[in-house]
Amino acid sequence: MSQKISTGWYFFLFTLVGASSGLIYTVFVGDGEPLVASLGFSGIAFAATFALISWLGDAFKRAGLKGKDISKPDRRELPETMGVVCAVVYLMCMIAFMPFPFYEYIVASTSGGGNREITVDQEVETGRLLHRFPHNKLGEYLSAILSLQSMVILGVADDLFDVRWRHKLFLPAIAVIPMLMVYYVDFGVTNVVVPTFLEPYFGTLLDLSWGYYLYMAAIAIFCPNSINILAGVNGIEVTQSIVIACFIAINDILYISVKGHPATNSHLFSLYFLLPFISVSLALWWHNWYPAKVFVGDTYCYFAGMIFAVVGILGHFSKTLLLLFIPQIFNFIYSSPQLFRLIPCPRHRLPRFRVQTGLMEVSRAEFPQPPKWYVDLALTTLERVGLVQVWRSSDGVITECSNLTILNLWIVWFGPMREDKVAMGVLALQCVCGVVGLLIRHKAALLVFPSDNLKVGF
Amino acid sequence: MSQKISTGWYFFLFTLVGASSGLIYTVFVGDGEPLVASLGFSGIAFAATFALISWLGDAFKRAGLKGKDISKPDRRELPETMGVVCAVVYLMCMIAFMPFPFYEYIVASTSGGGNREITVDQEVETGRLLHRFPHNKLGEYLSAILSLQSMVILGVADDLFDVRWRHKLFLPAIAVIPMLMVYYVDFGVTNVVVPTFLEPYFGTLLDLSWGYYLYMAAIAIFCPNSINILAGVNGIEVTQSIVIACFIAINDILYISVKGHPATNSHLFSLYFLLPFISVSLALWWHNWYPAKVFVGDTYCYFAGMIFAVVGILGHFSKTLLLLFIPQIFNFIYSSPQLFRLIPCPRHRLPRFRVQTGLMEVSRAEFPQPPKWYVDLALTTLERVGLVQVWRSSDGVITECSNLTILNLWIVWFGPMREDKVAMGVLALQCVCGVVGLLIRHKAALLVFPSDNLKVGF
Repeated sequence: MSQKISTGWYFFLFTLVGASSGLIYTVFVGDGEPLVASLGFSGIAFAATFALISWLGDAFKRAGLKGKDISKPDRRELPETMGVVCAVVYLMCMIAFMPFPFYEYIVASTSGGGNREITVDQEVETGRLLHRFPHNKLGEYLSAILSLQSMVILGVADDLFDVRWRHKLFLPAIAVIPMLMVYYVDFGVTNVVVPTFLEPYFGTLLDLSWGYYLYMAAIAIFCPNSINILAGVNGIEVTQSIVIACFIAINDILYISVKGHPATNSHLFSLYFLLPFISVSLALWWHNWYPAKVFVGDTYCYFAGMIFAVVGILGHFSKTLLLLFIPQIFNFIYSSPQLFRLIPCPRHRLPRFRVQTGLMEVSRAEFPQPPKWYVDLALTTLERVGLVQVWRSSDGVITECSNLTILNLWIVWFGPMREDKVAMGVLALQCVCGVVGLLIRHKAALLVFPSDNLKVGF
Repeated sequence: MSQKISTGWYFFLFTLVGASSGLIYTVFVGDGEPLVASLGFSGIAFAATFALISWLGDAFKRAGLKGKDISKPDRRELPETMGVVCAVVYLMCMIAFMPFPFYEYIVASTSGGGNREITVDQEVETGRLLHRFPHNKLGEYLSAILSLQSMVILGVADDLFDVRWRHKLFLPAIAVIPMLMVYYVDFGVTNVVVPTFLEPYFGTLLDLSWGYYLYMAAIAIFCPNSINILAGVNGIEVTQSIVIACFIAINDILYISVKGHPATNSHLFSLYFLLPFISVSLALWWHNWYPAKVFVGDTYCYFAGMIFAVVGILGHFSKTLLLLFIPQIFNFIYSSPQLFRLIPCPRHRLPRFRVQTGLMEVSRAEFPQPPKWYVDLALTTLERVGLVQVWRSSDGVITECSNLTILNLWIVWFGPMREDKVAMGVLALQCVCGVVGLLIRHKAALLVFPSDNLKVGF
């Protein structure tokens, strides 16, 4: 159902839009910091997303984009794929923001009058003035938006056509192609810094060549899919995305606050992409948190993951990025026995809702026949260390085990709980892991890399 | 329903893909002409589109993308929005093609070895080498793809949610924003050549400033919508798009065949965008021509129109472009009394199918009350010159008139005919108008502009 926006919310949204427009205007006329304009656009993006999600519920359901919330007593039908609203607002926002980060260079590279085209002609002829124009940054920016847009199109296709699991794994790999292409055409830097203990073998820089493209594609496949499989209770997809985005933003701010740091531009770039993302996600979060009024759809998971991949790749901090994905990495490894069918994998692995108690319980994978000896051994070992719950028949043969997701594990550890408590627990875990990840990055990385580029510059 | 591809077609498609891959490979290893690679990609795009449209029919219908063909006796249900298949294949093709037009510059601006990143560093520092790299063309290219992708997303939204007529008029204006933004950031040339008879007042070049952006937006609104309203019989959207694309391509080839012409690059650029478009459209045409097995959806009309707008704007031949849109312009002007509700406008204005004869007849707009005197006068005048058919009550009051579309007019002139005959007639008309348009461009334009840039260069 479409939802009514309360008067209080209308006041808030209007004030937000007014203040944000003011910020943008100030930057535009005063040639101020693009970051301030980005904050302004983020404010408007929040208001637009919030209002559109409220209004479009019915339209989405009429178009067939709907799903049942099976973790509620009434199994009510909710609009699905609302992440696409986020994504479209976000993309429009990023496109409208474009003149700001590149504006100072326009002013610098033209005389500011009506004869701009003469400058352009000279550029093409002689290249004298072109260096003041960060064309390469513009290319990065456009390629990032292009990849995000491709991801949205493929995500919507997935939500509409229910692409098979095996195929959908590779949708992000298709979406990242535009970015890799521009990377190839425009930069082609495929060197990586070698950890100190490997330097004797590889030197300080190693040219991975096409291997680097494979690495980037792998990042792009991992981020969206890892968010997509850590799903199943209200709000969990959006919450984890917001937490990750905030930690990346904190890392960016660490760099930017160091005066004249050589990586400032990369991290500013990353912030420009993250701020509006955080704001559209917050708007979606409000509607998707327990009890959910809308579903986010695979589109949102893909979109969020792709944003992280994009900023990680273009900002050259993909290893740091992975440190912030620790829960997702754990969840992926933990899930892999089911993903690769060593253990039966039911269609849905989310915790099971029990109507009588209103709580989420562990959901189980049934073994139609007794498991092979090595599966039995592995499960028994995991059971000993408290990483899985196992059910046995009277003669000791394993008949069921808890589904191997971090959400079920959480319930194995802490017992049945209400849906939002599960989400909050994982949120807390994500936060702790984020802090640990950043500490590893800036403290422990010195053990294996020659320098922490936050302090020394690379 | 999904369709079976016959063995003969499979042979053809495989051969086409093989030959096309060969072309691409030759260009890639031999550093050949990008145009040849573009031909190769077009071949692959045809095969992919043809096969995907055949296979995906059922999936589209299951996802609710379907519509009744009301001009057939059995009013069969067909998959709708198949244009999105064209568009996605096209976009992937354009993205994969990206290294080719820009490759020679990569080779030129690096030493070709593993030290490419050093070159990039130098570029950023000194700009010495950057001028050999056509960053501005890459920006154009990316912005064009970005606008086309935006158009696809908005087109799908339109097909899914049935956006209201008044709103959908402006969808292309939103989609063109990325291109205008990049134009603003990257070039900002807003001068136009003034016709000779106006030179005393404005000089030879006139800076339209923001008016130029309005002009570009107007082109982008006009092209997609004008194709979208010249619709209603099987195959007509695709056919007119193919004809227009071919004429633009012919015009491009005229320029390219003049050795060393200064506009060569713009027209090559245009060809790169048109060749794959023509090929995916031909594949769609095969399935959409009478009797249609699939519908193209608004997505296709928007997408096709946006391609024309993009190449017209970025190639700086938007006035020539409009000369090729003569039937669409006529249809738009002719339709405007209904579009602006001076005359009643039914939901559908396509010619009416009569089951008894199997022929298409004129469809009518009914006047619920007698028309105002000026409407009566206008209709009577148009009737005298044969531009409308009017039905009157016994006392001479107009009760009905033929719907004001070029398709109905065609039937008014030549009588009821089978659906494909209508489409063929309009196809012939489009061809004649295209020839006239090009003649006007290259012969008559000299009367009002200082030079035909085909011969002299501007």
